[in-house]
Amino acid sequence: MKIYTIKEDILSRNNERAKEVRALLDSKGIFYVNLMSSPGAGKTTALTKLIPLLSENFRIGVIEADIDSDKDALTVERETGAKVIQMHTAGACHITCQMSLEALEALGTDGLDLIFLENVGNLVCPAEFDTGADMNLVLLSVPEGDDKPLKYPLMFEVAHAVAVTKLDVTEIFDFSTERAVENIRKRNSGAEIFFTSSVKGDGIDALAQYIKNKAFKKIRKD
Amino acid sequence: MKIYTIKEDILSRNNERAKEVRALLDSKGIFYVNLMSSPGAGKTTALTKLIPLLSENFRIGVIEADIDSDKDALTVERETGAKVIQMHTAGACHITCQMSLEALEALGTDGLDLIFLENVGNLVCPAEFDTGADMNLVLLSVPEGDDKPLKYPLMFEVAHAVAVTKLDVTEIFDFSTERAVENIRKRNSGAEIFFTSSVKGDGIDALAQYIKNKAFKKIRKD
Repeated sequence: MKIYTIKEDILSRNNERAKEVRALLDSKGIFYVNLMSSPGAGKTTALTKLIPLLSENFRIGVIEADIDSDKDALTVERETGAKVIQMHTAGACHITCQMSLEALEALGTDGLDLIFLENVGNLVCPAEFDTGADMNLVLLSVPEGDDKPLKYPLMFEVAHAVAVTKLDVTEIFDFSTERAVENIRKRNSGAEIFFTSSVKGDGIDALAQYIKNKAFKKIRKD
Repeated sequence: MKIYTIKEDILSRNNERAKEVRALLDSKGIFYVNLMSSPGAGKTTALTKLIPLLSENFRIGVIEADIDSDKDALTVERETGAKVIQMHTAGACHITCQMSLEALEALGTDGLDLIFLENVGNLVCPAEFDTGADMNLVLLSVPEGDDKPLKYPLMFEVAHAVAVTKLDVTEIFDFSTERAVENIRKRNSGAEIFFTSSVKGDGIDALAQYIKNKAFKKIRKD
């Protein structure tokens, strides 16, 4: 069972590194959000909707992590004007804190107040690695089904907030918002839960306000 | 960069073990299908639609792999009557060949002709591990988007067949079947591609027929 020992070492080193990242961002007054979900749950779309609502108050940077392609980085840059870099993970299914740190350095943190890390689309592995972020924001899309917190427990356990996305197709997919809340609560009693639709605009303001409050609390030390 | 060496060792041992699994299944005349996709792309639903079309010709077993919950195993058992076991991966994001072998032993292969492994919902890690299966069947759901083969290359490279699922909601999600084919072809020139809707029944017959032909070819040595 050597593999598990190795994994523990990796995680332990990762957690040490996460403390360094937090100290760095704290000293610079930057709020850092780690956005995680399954592939295609709407991470990039959420960013294109949230950033315009946040850019009045914050100078925003975005790290787009993908195994391959630069599609998301181009989309976010074009639609929001935020400072964006694309990071390729060389096949890796998650972002370690070392990768997070290198990406922050590559992005350049000077002059920024709020940075989003769009993690690799994966409901399993990214949850295991602390990226040094102040907030883990997890998306659960309606077409995936309301049972996902039961099957992918750690992702929902590490979430500070869960945003259900694509709320406009709830009826088509027989998705129950009550069951979703119930299943999220089985994994996490304290996470904030939002119901959003980027098509209809539902819930985006509330989610932006939540991020704004948390970021102000850190940056201004409210 | 020690981690990559370790990973190579794990993959090399895994590939050796996969040969053993194939030899075992060959000797017993069993066709083994590894079903992979993102969370919520429709793996369980596909099984409930395919198995009734295949059970006239084959005695079918199903291994349901999840990090937690036994929801899918109960669904498949109830809706198809196939021999089903639930396998929990203890947090693991993929199925190694050792896990595959243990699950086959736990299921009991005697008297079976066709076995489905429903892998952990994850478009990254399961693609790295040969499970000993005869066929890798990958699902890509319409709500995820037609760009996924660009971002998750290995999964589409290892696929023998790709089934686009939830075809009935193509228009709602601005999913282009042409772009999907184009993007799959960038990763894999030879994979069979199916377009399916479990709601409308589109494409399920063709996919079942494809599996049937491949299974007959092995079992009967056609």
